[in-house]
Amino acid sequence: MIDSEQLKQHMVKAVEEIHATNPMAGSITNTVTIDFVANAQLAVGGSAAMVYLPDEGEALVAGGGAIYLNMGTLFPIYEQTIPRAAKAAHDAGKPWVLDPVGLGIGSLRTQLVNELKQYKPAIVRGNASEIIALAGLWGLEGEAADLSRVRGVDTTDTVDAARDAAVALARYTGGAVVVSGEVDLITDGMTVAKSHGGSPLMSKITGCGCSQGGVLAVYACAADPFTAAVCGTAVYNVAGTRAAAVADAPASFKVAFIDELYRATAQDIASNQLDLEEA
Amino acid sequence: MIDSEQLKQHMVKAVEEIHATNPMAGSITNTVTIDFVANAQLAVGGSAAMVYLPDEGEALVAGGGAIYLNMGTLFPIYEQTIPRAAKAAHDAGKPWVLDPVGLGIGSLRTQLVNELKQYKPAIVRGNASEIIALAGLWGLEGEAADLSRVRGVDTTDTVDAARDAAVALARYTGGAVVVSGEVDLITDGMTVAKSHGGSPLMSKITGCGCSQGGVLAVYACAADPFTAAVCGTAVYNVAGTRAAAVADAPASFKVAFIDELYRATAQDIASNQLDLEEA
Amino acid sequence: MIDSEQLKQHMVKAVEEIHATNPMAGSITNTVTIDFVANAQLAVGGSAAMVYLPDEGEALVAGGGAIYLNMGTLFPIYEQTIPRAAKAAHDAGKPWVLDPVGLGIGSLRTQLVNELKQYKPAIVRGNASEIIALAGLWGLEGEAADLSRVRGVDTTDTVDAARDAAVALARYTGGAVVVSGEVDLITDGMTVAKSHGGSPLMSKITGCGCSQGGVLAVYACAADPFTAAVCGTAVYNVAGTRAAAVADAPASFKVAFIDELYRATAQDIASNQLDLEEA
Repeated sequence: MIDSEQLKQHMVKAVEEIHATNPMAGSITNTVTIDFVANAQLAVGGSAAMVYLPDEGEALVAGGGAIYLNMGTLFPIYEQTIPRAAKAAHDAGKPWVLDPVGLGIGSLRTQLVNELKQYKPAIVRGNASEIIALAGLWGLEGEAADLSRVRGVDTTDTVDAARDAAVALARYTGGAVVVSGEVDLITDGMTVAKSHGGSPLMSKITGCGCSQGGVLAVYACAADPFTAAVCGTAVYNVAGTRAAAVADAPASFKVAFIDELYRATAQDIASNQLDLEEA
Repeated sequence: MIDSEQLKQHMVKAVEEIHATNPMAGSITNTVTIDFVANAQLAVGGSAAMVYLPDEGEALVAGGGAIYLNMGTLFPIYEQTIPRAAKAAHDAGKPWVLDPVGLGIGSLRTQLVNELKQYKPAIVRGNASEIIALAGLWGLEGEAADLSRVRGVDTTDTVDAARDAAVALARYTGGAVVVSGEVDLITDGMTVAKSHGGSPLMSKITGCGCSQGGVLAVYACAADPFTAAVCGTAVYNVAGTRAAAVADAPASFKVAFIDELYRATAQDIASNQLDLEEA
Repeated sequence: MIDSEQLKQHMVKAVEEIHATNPMAGSITNTVTIDFVANAQLAVGGSAAMVYLPDEGEALVAGGGAIYLNMGTLFPIYEQTIPRAAKAAHDAGKPWVLDPVGLGIGSLRTQLVNELKQYKPAIVRGNASEIIALAGLWGLEGEAADLSRVRGVDTTDTVDAARDAAVALARYTGGAVVVSGEVDLITDGMTVAKSHGGSPLMSKITGCGCSQGGVLAVYACAADPFTAAVCGTAVYNVAGTRAAAVADAPASFKVAFIDELYRATAQDIASNQLDLEEA
């Protein structure tokens, strides 16, 4: 299990490298929040590009430091695009981030997630219900096909209820898992970190989860999956806390939130409350 | 014809129930304003989910309280997705909301709208030209195929000119129709309500109409179509009036507008000026 | 080469006509920034409509004053939609604007751009690397297929390095070319104009380039390509400069930027610093 001071040093180093190099993390992501994903990636110091076609996804993998695959709004062509992008990243040894949003809606989503198992995402991010459903679907923990708990894009489970699923997922992938909630949980299968902060207004705007996935991919360009996952979670909690101090309604909160993603320094991110325990 | 005090009571009850239960109204909607639709639905107290594939649309119908079908930017797959979602809602006895935006652009839009007639939307929302064109296309009022009056996504007719078309549509569907304009008209075929307020800046941002359709679907989860239509129109007029009091340019107006959707109470919505007359 | 005072008069006339007539410029554009494109078009006084299907693109050409084709996020159907829209504009003698964003990512983009050459866009807008790559691809200047310099959606070249490519493109099309950068370059093949202003924050939000393409299409409804290109570039520099005076972080900057697009008068736009030289 990593030591708290050592982790902070890794975090500062990762954030500073992102600010210095502006790495490109491509995305295949949903149309609802695609603008938020790109703007959040730019705000934290990365660079963004989004595509839909299979060979274009492979080109983004080749040209970038990581790729983000978000299952929010599937198009028919995704039957090819999503697995080919994941395979390209896997074969190139580049990190990719999975957001299994809406797992349980329709058949293609389940089919794709099953196909993606072999390519082992460096980071998985989801709400508690999605993480529990994914671990079940991949046969790692819990019921094999318990998709009924996922209600649209909302969670019906608590973060603590998803702890075992998250740890099992991380041990399988060898990467990190982020469970978003009031207190966020991040694990690499050995350490469980809990990141505090944020605001209830984050659930009153669409795309905090999706855009965090894109930010995780940016950090994954410059750090190991666990450090990237902790950084990408901490910066969201820092920005959420600060935005809530100046805005009390969702649209002005969103503007303030992205501004604070941009303003957050490496020290701000590394100093945000993070509790570590053994997995 | 409903009594004014009774309608206000229905409105207060509907809005309070939405605030208490956060019902999910799924959408198949255009990519231009999809983020605005979702954020408006969240702001008024609902929950949002957007998809493109046929079985996913059916899943949203099954998992939500209502569904919103907006024809803004058609994809080829919509030839299946849109009718199957409407049929699923019809068969399940769940309300669905139709926004026939851009009627007259291309052939698929007309084909789909013709196919949707049989599934009788609980609420139709459009500008005057779209409502007149829809009533004509469905053979309910006016010329059968007078689509020339729809100029892109803008209206060339006044709200009053669409009164007969709106009443005919509502009598056919057994639901409600909203005609958006300077003064909005809402009818269930028996009563015609006119809702006042809003701001000219609402036409200087994209998506006020589209996002209102999503909000109407949220209210339809908790109220009969006419009450839902009146609530969803009134909350837009309340928020538009208030936003125009603090912002004089479109982007800051949009931020203020969504904030005011969030702040509007059941009393605010029920107290907004509404004139009732017989259809 | 045009005289500076004469150009200013053309600019004032164009902007005032847009404000008076609100012409519709349709778009086939990417999903990342589609909302920004529409809102920017509305803010400068135009009207917007976006579609994906081939006959719908043709309908927008028929119904509008110009059309904007942005290659950001290609869908499979674009293999038909994009060339048919360009051909329809060409055949109707209406101006169309090309943004070859992401040239070099995947094969369809290159195929489409090659096909578009014959339809001669009235205005091309891109960053320096995209303009150099396009001139090379069309065999007008530089290496025939030097796409490696395009890194995702970012530029690796300076505006000055793209001068010859821009002039060659403009001479081929008979229209205008805009190269976006710290100082923007606009040419019609005879005159080279340099437009000053803007802010580094414009590169910290997604879509300044894309939305400028939509605005160029609006101006092209009311002016010759060079005047339209100069107006659409100047209004972005005016709004960028003013927004940076009131906002120091990207999301609040974006709000202020769109507000300033709306506030900019014909005089503001025509008075922005513009240096003219022979091509």
